[in-house]
Amino acid sequence: MQKILILGGGGMIGQKMAQKIVHENTFGAADITLFDRAFPSGNLGLTSITGNIADPATATKLVASKPDYIFQLASIVSGQAEQEFELGWDVNMMSMWYLLNALKDQHDASGGTYRPRVVFTSSIAVFGGPYPDKIGDEFLSAPQTSYGAQKAACELMLSDFSRKGSVDGVSLRLPTICVRPGEANKAASSFFSGIIREPLNGVEAILPVQDTVRHWHASPRSAAGFITHAAMLDTDLLDGRRALNLPGYSCTVEEQIEALRRAAGQRAVDLIKHVPDEAIMAMVGEWPRDFDPQRAIELGFTSEANFDEIIAVYIDEDLER
Amino acid sequence: MQKILILGGGGMIGQKMAQKIVHENTFGAADITLFDRAFPSGNLGLTSITGNIADPATATKLVASKPDYIFQLASIVSGQAEQEFELGWDVNMMSMWYLLNALKDQHDASGGTYRPRVVFTSSIAVFGGPYPDKIGDEFLSAPQTSYGAQKAACELMLSDFSRKGSVDGVSLRLPTICVRPGEANKAASSFFSGIIREPLNGVEAILPVQDTVRHWHASPRSAAGFITHAAMLDTDLLDGRRALNLPGYSCTVEEQIEALRRAAGQRAVDLIKHVPDEAIMAMVGEWPRDFDPQRAIELGFTSEANFDEIIAVYIDEDLER
Repeated sequence: MQKILILGGGGMIGQKMAQKIVHENTFGAADITLFDRAFPSGNLGLTSITGNIADPATATKLVASKPDYIFQLASIVSGQAEQEFELGWDVNMMSMWYLLNALKDQHDASGGTYRPRVVFTSSIAVFGGPYPDKIGDEFLSAPQTSYGAQKAACELMLSDFSRKGSVDGVSLRLPTICVRPGEANKAASSFFSGIIREPLNGVEAILPVQDTVRHWHASPRSAAGFITHAAMLDTDLLDGRRALNLPGYSCTVEEQIEALRRAAGQRAVDLIKHVPDEAIMAMVGEWPRDFDPQRAIELGFTSEANFDEIIAVYIDEDLER
Repeated sequence: MQKILILGGGGMIGQKMAQKIVHENTFGAADITLFDRAFPSGNLGLTSITGNIADPATATKLVASKPDYIFQLASIVSGQAEQEFELGWDVNMMSMWYLLNALKDQHDASGGTYRPRVVFTSSIAVFGGPYPDKIGDEFLSAPQTSYGAQKAACELMLSDFSRKGSVDGVSLRLPTICVRPGEANKAASSFFSGIIREPLNGVEAILPVQDTVRHWHASPRSAAGFITHAAMLDTDLLDGRRALNLPGYSCTVEEQIEALRRAAGQRAVDLIKHVPDEAIMAMVGEWPRDFDPQRAIELGFTSEANFDEIIAVYIDEDLER
């Protein structure tokens, strides 16, 4: 029986992913453990452990059972990492350091036979402008946020521990995940979901940027799919470059709104109020707009082909009617 | 009076740099402190502190005097970082983490007025193949050695602590420094210097690779020049991309040997013995061969125009006759 450990398993993507592997029986009869600071009610009936991933002792305890697959999804979001600098580095980078060292200890203690797959959710925040029109697979990582720098540092560690053989890791540079269910979070990108989610629920939404802003999106369903695909990937195909730009859909806020109109009519669109926010505009102006993720596509990663599909996923999976 | 702290001040580049700033009076009447595990005899008569940079308490003590300029040159070399994985990450990455946190504590305690310049010697080892013919300023960092991964992680930290304002950092991706004086070290690149240095001293040298191998070189004098230039640089010109590819000279081993012949005749060349070493050939085969470092050139960094000049620097500065 495969042992699965999902760090950040209480978060939105962690829950989506846990649901997916349970419902699709991805790993067969698996022993699934979720770890997070806290969990939503319900929580799929899986083993759940609460704790602090920035505590060096946490990883040691969590990997003592030698999980076969470790999904490292836990992090604080971009807005919070900017505001709470030390917390950001502790939670978003040092936790990876502790995890990899704990796994290496298990690898060494096993005489080298234990070599778990580690899938890490990195982010397109590892990139910083100026950008080409489409960011290619060989474009430099020069993050302009603490969150991005922390994710990029984790990629480097995971890649090197993998190269040396104690783990077998893949870093996934997730597009902005949209439409996120639930409440807005502290991520500066939160509005990309809010302007779709709130109107679909009959609630007013704030658009803090111009509708000409272009960004790079994939649905929560795609995110869960990326992660399970990475778990099964033949990592020899990565040729030592273990951080992947992923497929997504590039569109402007205006195109998002047009897709909302097609899905839910003018009444939904009328619920979007444009209230410019200089701070958010400044941050979003620095973000990637479009990618050419050839490697990931060749490796079989897939996502939505247009924003209508992204809205349809939300309506299908998360809209309460 | 400016306070200067040179970490790794006992190493070859640290000593060259200390000599340069003393002799050229770069910082005026300066209070210069060197830190390293050990120092060569002589040591320029400067204040020297021995200790372990991988000890978290070291940085706290060293920066208590609020140095204006910190040169972080201390690291273990590539070959050793491959062999001693944990030591490599401790010395080459965690030391930067401790240093930046200690500097941030001083910054915070000063009410934000203390913001030292930090110049970090990174390396072209942050790159991993496959490469374009010339590596441009926007090429990805995908290191294939622990040394390279550690250097790249340090760049990310230094950049983000700088962006947030507690330090003002620049990372310099040094070419292979050649001709190194003194004895061969554990760096796999050591032979690039050895095949010039040993024959100039009448000693036999081992060439472990084919003479068609192309690589990227600059002299120790250029290295010291890069570092002092970075200390004086207007970092606003970096536009938030604080890691720089530097100028150097790209040539094959055959061209190195031809330059040696011009400098010291056939008798010197005859001292080079080709003894293939599969392990070194494999590592060197993964290394960068050539760069197009436009940004650094525009920022005023300079190096040698050909390998004859690189040999001439060694003969001028280090050859004992």
